[in-house]
Amino acid sequence: MSGDRVQPDWSAPERAVRATAREYLDSGEPAVLATVVAVDGRAYRRPGAKMVVAPGGGAAGDEPADDARPEPDPGSTGAGSVTAGCLADSVVDLASDVLADGSARVERFDLRSDETWGLGVGCDGVVDLLLEPLGERHRPLAAPDDELPTGRTAAVVVESGDPRLAVGDRWDDSDGDTAGAFPPAVTTEIPDDADGTRSVRVETGGGAVRLFVERVTPAPRLVVVGSNADVRPVVASARSAGFRVTVVGFRGGRATSERFPRADRVVATSPRDLCGAVGFGADDSVVLMTHNFVDDRVALAELLATPVDYLGVLGPAERFDRLRRALADDGVELDERDRDRIYAPVGLDLGGGSPAQVAHSVVAEVLAVRNDRTGGHLRGVDGPIHERPD
Amino acid sequence: MSGDRVQPDWSAPERAVRATAREYLDSGEPAVLATVVAVDGRAYRRPGAKMVVAPGGGAAGDEPADDARPEPDPGSTGAGSVTAGCLADSVVDLASDVLADGSARVERFDLRSDETWGLGVGCDGVVDLLLEPLGERHRPLAAPDDELPTGRTAAVVVESGDPRLAVGDRWDDSDGDTAGAFPPAVTTEIPDDADGTRSVRVETGGGAVRLFVERVTPAPRLVVVGSNADVRPVVASARSAGFRVTVVGFRGGRATSERFPRADRVVATSPRDLCGAVGFGADDSVVLMTHNFVDDRVALAELLATPVDYLGVLGPAERFDRLRRALADDGVELDERDRDRIYAPVGLDLGGGSPAQVAHSVVAEVLAVRNDRTGGHLRGVDGPIHERPD
Repeated sequence: MSGDRVQPDWSAPERAVRATAREYLDSGEPAVLATVVAVDGRAYRRPGAKMVVAPGGGAAGDEPADDARPEPDPGSTGAGSVTAGCLADSVVDLASDVLADGSARVERFDLRSDETWGLGVGCDGVVDLLLEPLGERHRPLAAPDDELPTGRTAAVVVESGDPRLAVGDRWDDSDGDTAGAFPPAVTTEIPDDADGTRSVRVETGGGAVRLFVERVTPAPRLVVVGSNADVRPVVASARSAGFRVTVVGFRGGRATSERFPRADRVVATSPRDLCGAVGFGADDSVVLMTHNFVDDRVALAELLATPVDYLGVLGPAERFDRLRRALADDGVELDERDRDRIYAPVGLDLGGGSPAQVAHSVVAEVLAVRNDRTGGHLRGVDGPIHERPD
Repeated sequence: MSGDRVQPDWSAPERAVRATAREYLDSGEPAVLATVVAVDGRAYRRPGAKMVVAPGGGAAGDEPADDARPEPDPGSTGAGSVTAGCLADSVVDLASDVLADGSARVERFDLRSDETWGLGVGCDGVVDLLLEPLGERHRPLAAPDDELPTGRTAAVVVESGDPRLAVGDRWDDSDGDTAGAFPPAVTTEIPDDADGTRSVRVETGGGAVRLFVERVTPAPRLVVVGSNADVRPVVASARSAGFRVTVVGFRGGRATSERFPRADRVVATSPRDLCGAVGFGADDSVVLMTHNFVDDRVALAELLATPVDYLGVLGPAERFDRLRRALADDGVELDERDRDRIYAPVGLDLGGGSPAQVAHSVVAEVLAVRNDRTGGHLRGVDGPIHERPD
């Protein structure tokens, strides 16, 4: 394992990987898409994790235009991660082979064994990696978030007993007759609940085929209501953690893309027009941090009328008590569901006081609530760190 | 409050603020040091929080050479934060006055009132801000971490009933007879336990004087043992959160400053020489993430012989069990203190699986343990978010 080889930007969030894939597709520069398609036991990344590898280097992927990242690798040639980095050079080598060869393949990495890859990783996992030359059939997977309003299901052949089908043949739900020439004669139904990520065995009429089925969804959205300087580290931290971030300001001059260059969207509106201007869904997380009591009061009343599931409110508990009493004066009483979805004071109890530390605590809580986790120490949690696919 | 005015980089960690102060001192460009010297009730920043403000702009401070930050403000002219940003323009205006006037002053911001500053902040706090023209007497405060091995106590006059003493006169423990001409005739002892940050009233012989006493300490250190790609987001996240970060690699080619440009120090060594090469103290936090079972086994045995208080180990619980059994085979049994300081699996339970999310979870846990906090939701925690000074 030499450290000299140029490596992709390993810590790019999933959406940045998609953006990088689009860049390679647009530029026509050759690249390989690597996808974790099976994990037996434990591994660093879960099935569906993706990486774009450009073994020959190239201009694209260094800095995806719409996905600024905190720490781009100066020599990056791609983006994403399918392992913690221990297989880095192996993956780049395999990608070169795949490009030279022109066809997709599945490679198995057995991390349980100290010998197979000579790594002594000591993990208990076996990882199957699908490597495909990146091509137009990957466009649906590489779609920007706003073209994936409700997500999309994609299937790819990872094992084929049917001579008409090859590893890498693809199909996706909105464009079924193009892509990888997937035959309509699948005699086994793909389970209806295949909205997660899994591998299924199907009969095609010509033989048994294993499909990797995955759900491509837009990145989760965090809406930050506020436009003071303390919003900036929240935006940065949430972007790294994989969120799309909308910043909403009630002072026009402050709510500009220039002030929040890392935000995906910056909206200037008034507290009463908040919901009309942004449009909230149950899947959105919202953090209220205007530092203005009157703005918070009106905005919170508006937000309570939305199906939003996470509503963090910055500030000490006493301030929220005043806010709650003010809402009651306005005829807005919190019910049980509101008490459940309002997090005030916002954030996990990390004890830091600097703006970046406060932001860290806020984003940590948003992640934990979204993922239905406790936020407590992992060493005290029973069971696996990640949910395992069936 | 217009958004046009150029503002300092608000989310710079404390050490970046010190670095910015050094830059202004070295360049001779005028700047103001703002310090929170008292908080009554609740406020965003605690006493001791600092900000360097250069109202006239200038080259320095945009990008301190040794303190790269995740998201520098493109128009920044300084660094740090003394409020959440709601007083931004007021602070810049006051800084201009202080520079024109040439003398230090204390300004009170009453955030309880909706009228005083016309902000309607709705916080319950009153914040006293000391604003001083930045000068050579601030060198001890602006010292780099390696010149502050055990920290330093500094005192500054914030209120004076002694005609010989003015607001801004300074004294620090290792250079008592220079700086702000603080007279030796203090008849009230500064409490011995003044290792925190507080305001004390002393008698000088010429009258009663209020001193703001603070302890300037080096940034806490996080040592990351490992040099795979997944170390990079941990370094980035820890740096933003205010840590000094040392990366230790056991594969020379991978443990280079080029691969970890955000690390403060990169050490290439062998597992057995780990402690000699790095030198660990009780105040260090260590995360073990080599992804190599043999390396982890030897390194963990070495680390257990140090006084380190936090020892995070990446990987699933089963892998740590194997590690523990392997250590027992080597004659190393974990005692109660070890079980307390070892966090395996490392991190808070946030549920994210991407490299940046894993890094977020690791740094969140290091912060929580360092600050003696639970990591749970703040809304479930009784008492103030921050410890309040006496």
